[in-house]
Order: sequence, then structure tokens, then C-alpha cells
Amino acid sequence: LIERFHPVVPAGGSGTRLWPLSRAGRPKFLLPLGPDPTRSLLQATVDRLAPLCGLDRLLVVTGEAHRAAVREQLPDLPPANVIAEPSPRNSAAPIVLAAAIAHQRDPAALTGSFAADHVVTDRAAFQAVIEAAAQVAADGPLVTVGLRPTQADTGYGYIRAGDPLGRGPGLAVRSFTEKPDAATARDYVEAGSYLWNAGMFVWRADALLAEVARQLPGLYDGVRRIAAAYAAGDGPDVHAAIWPTLPAVSIDVGIVEGAAERGLVACVPGDFGWTDVGTFDSLGDVLPRDAAGNVRVGGAEVLAVDSARCVVSAAGRPVVLLGVHDLVVVEAGDVVLVCPRDRAQEVGALVAAVRDAGRGGLT
Amino acid sequence: LIERFHPVVPAGGSGTRLWPLSRAGRPKFLLPLGPDPTRSLLQATVDRLAPLCGLDRLLVVTGEAHRAAVREQLPDLPPANVIAEPSPRNSAAPIVLAAAIAHQRDPAALTGSFAADHVVTDRAAFQAVIEAAAQVAADGPLVTVGLRPTQADTGYGYIRAGDPLGRGPGLAVRSFTEKPDAATARDYVEAGSYLWNAGMFVWRADALLAEVARQLPGLYDGVRRIAAAYAAGDGPDVHAAIWPTLPAVSIDVGIVEGAAERGLVACVPGDFGWTDVGTFDSLGDVLPRDAAGNVRVGGAEVLAVDSARCVVSAAGRPVVLLGVHDLVVVEAGDVVLVCPRDRAQEVGALVAAVRDAGRGGLT
Repeated sequence: LIERFHPVVPAGGSGTRLWPLSRAGRPKFLLPLGPDPTRSLLQATVDRLAPLCGLDRLLVVTGEAHRAAVREQLPDLPPANVIAEPSPRNSAAPIVLAAAIAHQRDPAALTGSFAADHVVTDRAAFQAVIEAAAQVAADGPLVTVGLRPTQADTGYGYIRAGDPLGRGPGLAVRSFTEKPDAATARDYVEAGSYLWNAGMFVWRADALLAEVARQLPGLYDGVRRIAAAYAAGDGPDVHAAIWPTLPAVSIDVGIVEGAAERGLVACVPGDFGWTDVGTFDSLGDVLPRDAAGNVRVGGAEVLAVDSARCVVSAAGRPVVLLGVHDLVVVEAGDVVLVCPRDRAQEVGALVAAVRDAGRGGLT
Repeated sequence: LIERFHPVVPAGGSGTRLWPLSRAGRPKFLLPLGPDPTRSLLQATVDRLAPLCGLDRLLVVTGEAHRAAVREQLPDLPPANVIAEPSPRNSAAPIVLAAAIAHQRDPAALTGSFAADHVVTDRAAFQAVIEAAAQVAADGPLVTVGLRPTQADTGYGYIRAGDPLGRGPGLAVRSFTEKPDAATARDYVEAGSYLWNAGMFVWRADALLAEVARQLPGLYDGVRRIAAAYAAGDGPDVHAAIWPTLPAVSIDVGIVEGAAERGLVACVPGDFGWTDVGTFDSLGDVLPRDAAGNVRVGGAEVLAVDSARCVVSAAGRPVVLLGVHDLVVVEAGDVVLVCPRDRAQEVGALVAAVRDAGRGGLT
């Protein structure tokens, strides 16, 4: 248990590149895409944070449309710890609001943000890294967790890490980079000093709020008033009134990058089998595979004959593969998708094509 | 209408290479695999023969297990024209029995055999060829229909045709060949004188029965007694008693090849979009395709994005393809199969693997 640790789990985004598993009404974080087919990504995220903070101090921020599903998947979470956003407002607003609520509950709170739709395969390593990050954050810096790259991935942003900070596990952050092209990504991985930016943060609530007050004073005022209203029992109404006036910016662009320029951001490197589950291909990289490299998502029943490196999801029906390799096969109950793993990035665009074909009901 | 034409449609064989569409209890001939997704292969076979013979003169021989399904699919066929085999006895016994029944009904009957599980895409051309074959057969020869090869297929036997017989459309048959290897198949197609042996015959009942009496006298005696019993109203019992004593040999090996050696077999060449539907790949060769060469079997709903030459079957659920080519995708309701078209021959062996995996219920 990390003392005074009040993390937030932002549960948003539909994950269209995981269609037809993900749907408008069935976002990625509600799906069991991790190594344990009995737990959704959201449940697995809470499962690995709960030993660090207890359920009383864990907040989930989700869209109004998903509040009921979140409550159902997390029956042991106190109802007051599920905050429903009246509308999507990018990532800074919900994360900073959660920090303000934590600060309202405990002015010395340590907080942080852990997306509800990522996969972590090594939970013990994750918890050790977060404990190290909390240690660093206790001294004031905003701490980001950097994943040691396992390949030259062009789907992630990178953190350029610098020298160690004191004797702790923290490193200085020299800069953040956008998603690189393939050659640049290879350079980054060879250089050894670049880490994947997982958008995973640990920080003191007061330290974050001070930076918010400096960089986005309107956001600061707004979340303080909303947090006070939640404490006073009038949260949802005030939330609904103020929310549309707040800036819809990402936490990285809105706060972290500006703080890094002032030397306020540290990085703790980690290695715990992480992916943001952007595509079916990325699931194939982290989930357990059979001897031929085939991955069964969510406990899919697959009979693979002379087939290798396929990623298969199946909603209750078996999938039989003969002589195929590097394919994504998704049997989603009402529709079947087949595509090569190296085109899994294009699945998001498929959703529009499905709508154009008059099958919007499947999206 | 061809006068005195009493053709038989042998409806047997399960078609394991079309699993998971075909099952032990749902053989290939009961499935809608032809160009018209509303008609099974059996129904389509009867549809194209009926204008030539009328339903009163058309016989179907099927296994006892499928008699009810055949009757249901062919409600207008007189019940006495559906003969149930007590057990499978290869192809000579049912075809010769049908000839004996036709001969019993009309001693001058013309008969012939047309498998229930083939696809013909050009019905008018088919009917013209059968009319020509009937003309040739009226003079006595046993007539086999030879398909002009559209590619060097190794899945078919070939007929080596010789000189024209008189002024009619018939050609002498020099020999029959087994399924050739790829190089031999190419030689055959280049030579121009080889035709696919479709196992499709037209002959006078008396001419066939004379050859049966000569080559397989036991079969001759047996079918005569069974046919007489059907005429006397005691068919099924006599059929069941005699059937197991008859030779289980194919019509080709048991009768036609021996007749050819004596110069009694003629061939009428044809070209009517034929396949024996041995594999999903063969369906891709004859069924209508979209601009990218994708084939929708049985009216499957397919959204193909940047995908080519795939063969897709779907039981009510749409299949979405992105960036794949030359694949077979079968969504059969309770199981999904994915394999390359050029490995569709191996699907039959898959059935054993599915049983070994404890999923015999799917076979």
C-alpha cells in the first residue's frame, strides 16, 4: 500500500481499431482483452491498482453513457468514486478533476493516472515501478512512467530520458516526442535512452494543481469548484454546468510538456509487459501465445492447424485455422472480421465503411 | 423434353472437404452452393433435369438417413421416385438399380446419371448437351459427357476422346485416365483431345443392363429382382435383403471402363460451367464473382475492402475482409473456418482434427 495514494482511472475512448469487439456502446475498456479472460481491461486495471491504494481511494472517471456498466463491473468500488463526465473533454480535464477531488479529500494526497484500457502482463513489476514512482513524486516532481521499448514501434510517443535524479529511481526528462516514423523509431530504440510514453503518471495533487493553475488557470478554477461541489453533495449539477467551459486538451500537451520545459517532470523506467492495446496486432505482441505464436484473445477456442502468429478472438464459437499466418480473425457474434496483422491499424477506418454499407448497427 | 428419358440422380456422399458447411447429417447435396442461393445442389440438379424428363420420370437414389430431407426439398417429386439405399454401395449399384427400375417401367427407356452435388452454371448449354447425348445414346452406345477443361485440374479424371462417330455429336472414347499429376494435366489440356470426366452418363436402359449382365452378372440379377419388387409393391424389403450381397464398385470401374474396351462407349463434349464442388476453391472457379474476384457462396453478406479472390460463405452474419486475398472464410453458424484457397483440398482431413479436439459435435 502506498500512503495517501489516490489514483484515477480515466475510462474513455471507444477503441475503434478493435472493432468489431469494441462498439460505440461497448468500449474497449469494458472488454476482457488482457491475459485473464474473466476480467475486462477496466477490471484488470483496478485489480492491479487496488493493492497499492485500496478501493476507497481509487477514482474512475467515465462517460455518462458508461457509468452503469462501470458500476456493474466494479461492484466493490464506492459509488462516490465513479465520476461521470457530462461530455468527453479530452484527458486533462478528467485527470485534473480527479486530482482536485483527491486534494479535497486529502490535501497531502498523492495521485496519478492509469488508463482503463491498457494491458499489463507483469503485475508485480508494475506495482514495484509505481511504488518507485511514488517515492520520486513525494519530493515534488511530476512523474511519468516510461516503458523500455521492446521494438521500434511507430504507434507510441517516446520520452527522451536524461540523467538520474539524486539516488532514487527517477530520471530527468529531456523531452517528449510525437509518434515517430519507422527509421526514427529504430534510432530511438538503438540509442537506449528513449522510453515509450505510456501516459501513466504519478504526482502529488498539490504539485499537479500548482502547474495547472500556472498553465491553465481556467481549468484550475473549474475543477476546484467541481471538486468542492462533489464534497458538498452537489457534484453532478455543478459538474454539468462548468464542464463545457473547460479546455478540451490532453494532459500531455496541456500540462506535462510545459512542466517538462521547467524541469518539473521526472521519469521512472519500467518493464512490465505493457501495451495500450491500440490494435489487434498489439494484443498479439503481449498476450500469451502457443508454440506457433498464435494468440487466443479472451479465451477464444481456436483449432490452429499448420497456422502461426495469428490473433484470434471468438465470442463463444470455435475458430478453425488451416495453413494461415499473421492474420487477425475476430468472430464477434454478429459479424466476422479477417485481416492481416500488419493492417490492423486500418480497422478503425473500416467502421466508416461498415456504416456506408448500411450496417451501422454493427458499429 | 427428351422422349422416354428416365434419368437418375444419385444423392450420396457427405463432402467432407466442404466442412463446416457439410456435416455428417447435412451432406453437400442438401446445401445451396450453386449460383441460386435459394436452391440446394440437389434441387438445382432436379431443376435442370425436369424440363428434359418431367418429374414423373426422374428418380433420386439416396441414403435412408437422408430420405426425409430429400422428400422435403423435392415436394413435387412422386414419392415412389425417391429410392432409399439401405446402405452405401458405391455408385454402380444405385445407378444400375435405377436403370432396372426405368426398364421395368418402360422397356425402351433411355436413362442416365447426374450426381446431386455438382454445380452447372449454364443450364441452357447443359440441356443442349444432354439432348445431343440422348440422340447418340438412342443408337446404343453408352454415352458419357466430357467437359472441356478450363484449367489443368488435378482433381478430375480425364477422358481421351477420339474420332467423331458418324455425323452426330458423339466422339469415340479411346480411354479413361485417373486423376493426373500437374504436369500430365497440363499435357492433357494442351493436347486438346482430353475432356474432364464428370461422371455424367446417358444410355439406353437395355444397353446398360446388357453390359451389366456381361460384366457383373450378380449385380444384374440383384437389381432385376429389386426393381421387380418395387413394381410389385414389396420394394424396400427385397431391397434390404439383396442390397448387401451386391458388389460395391463404382460405375466407372465396374461397367464403363470395360464397355469402353469393347468400343461401346461414346463421349459428347460440353461446356456448361461445371464443377463437382470438391472444395471451396472449386466454388471460387465457377460461381459469380465481384470485380475483385471475391465469391459469395449461398448469398453470403461480405464487405470486402482491398481484398481479392476470396471465397466466403456466411450463415446469416456478415463477414468483413480487409486486405486479404485468396482465402476461404466460412462462417457456419457454430464454427468459423479460415484457410487459403490453395489448401482447400486439406479441409477434409481437418474433420478428424476437429474430432480429436473433442469437437465431434461440429462434424
